[in-house]
Amino acid sequence: MSTTRPVFYVSDGTGITAETIGHSLLTQFTDTRFVTDRIPFVDSPERAREVAERIRRVGEIHGVRPIVVSSCVDPTMTLLIAASGALMLDVFAPFIEPMERELEQQRQSRVGQAHGLVDFETYHRRINAMNFALTHDDGMAINYDEADLILVAVSRAGKTPTCVYLALHHGVRAANYPLTEEDLEHDRLPARLRAHRAKLFGLTIDPVRLQQIRQERRPNSRYALLETCKREVTAAEALFRAERLPVLSTTHTSIEEIASKVLTTLGIHREMF
Amino acid sequence: MSTTRPVFYVSDGTGITAETIGHSLLTQFTDTRFVTDRIPFVDSPERAREVAERIRRVGEIHGVRPIVVSSCVDPTMTLLIAASGALMLDVFAPFIEPMERELEQQRQSRVGQAHGLVDFETYHRRINAMNFALTHDDGMAINYDEADLILVAVSRAGKTPTCVYLALHHGVRAANYPLTEEDLEHDRLPARLRAHRAKLFGLTIDPVRLQQIRQERRPNSRYALLETCKREVTAAEALFRAERLPVLSTTHTSIEEIASKVLTTLGIHREMF
Repeated sequence: MSTTRPVFYVSDGTGITAETIGHSLLTQFTDTRFVTDRIPFVDSPERAREVAERIRRVGEIHGVRPIVVSSCVDPTMTLLIAASGALMLDVFAPFIEPMERELEQQRQSRVGQAHGLVDFETYHRRINAMNFALTHDDGMAINYDEADLILVAVSRAGKTPTCVYLALHHGVRAANYPLTEEDLEHDRLPARLRAHRAKLFGLTIDPVRLQQIRQERRPNSRYALLETCKREVTAAEALFRAERLPVLSTTHTSIEEIASKVLTTLGIHREMF
Repeated sequence: MSTTRPVFYVSDGTGITAETIGHSLLTQFTDTRFVTDRIPFVDSPERAREVAERIRRVGEIHGVRPIVVSSCVDPTMTLLIAASGALMLDVFAPFIEPMERELEQQRQSRVGQAHGLVDFETYHRRINAMNFALTHDDGMAINYDEADLILVAVSRAGKTPTCVYLALHHGVRAANYPLTEEDLEHDRLPARLRAHRAKLFGLTIDPVRLQQIRQERRPNSRYALLETCKREVTAAEALFRAERLPVLSTTHTSIEEIASKVLTTLGIHREMF
């Protein structure tokens, strides 16, 4: 089967729910090549008919039945899209009935709700946490009292994206501390960090991988030499051991996984946005 | 029914898929108060048994049956967790059989796959896009040639979080241009922006809301006066009209929705990470 199978993530909201579950589902079918497209904001019958027609045509072009992963809250939309002839996978449908039975109530199918129309409170927390991450990036500002956690690592080991992710999706105030050459020589963390030991989490990385990242950033610098990377990583790992910090290697770990492991290890429980 | 219903998002990966769909599902049941907890990395029978016991106890404490939204790829884990007595909602189960039939193949249930073990290529794109967003934040650097899109708005209207989100989840290089007082007086965009007209997207915001955000940022400044906010927003909207930019109000829109609408409007199709 070397045909490419078109998959559409369709929603009356952003389609993030459909794409999240759809993507996880597709990766379990390794023998097929998929080509995916997200179609958000399908929130009127006219739009649904247009989309159905577009999906039908794509199926015709590929000569194979398309797959639709739908997170439309309004079942009318899903029905109209089914006219495309695609295999319809409705991400909510299988769970509505068991939930209604369990909770002894009917579900409300208003669109804005399911797709989390913003509330000011949540928006504020995300934005404030993001501002915190950006102003506390690379040890620029130094008020660690307000930090929920502090990532410690050598330059380019993955601190910044993790901090930004934690802010954006958990409203967590994540600061980060880049280990300087001085720190690495002393084999001890600076006192101002040791005062926050319970908030510290060390990141490490394979030196070869670090070298690639740094090389892209500052080609042919001393900073990007494999030797520099090896020395720094070895010293950082020794420091983490000496200070007994929890440590995670970012080499084969996605930003989502790093963030999740940091929160779990430090015992920080936060809802996901 | 004023009892609080405990809900657990359980996974052998990060649990992001379970929480994403679970959260959308819960918002459709408005008569119940839910308390939610994510339990990631349940990847061994021992851990699954521990988790089942914990869920059972929480149910006992609340005096009500817990709900488990599971995105475990390995069905053994789901079975072990079911011993907790919770209502089990398995986010993949309903779709496996129709997919297997449609694709005429068996699914692979290796964990790392479904949860997207990082590939270097993807990591690079995300990180590079994030670096781009951070260095092109608030018009600091000026190379708009490399930008996939440029958000234009007055200060604090939502540009930075949107740019960071676009980088992190779509690998899109999003720059942003803060409208200065001078721009707003001239009723025209600066020439260096007009050269990239097809990449421009305007954000606007309710002045009262803007005032709240700015007040938190710089209390009692001229910048945070309602009058200043009203004047700037009115001028920005006039400018967007004059320049015929697509515009979206961020007042009641989540970061995800803003990002999704910007991409759709500008015709940028990208997979989601």
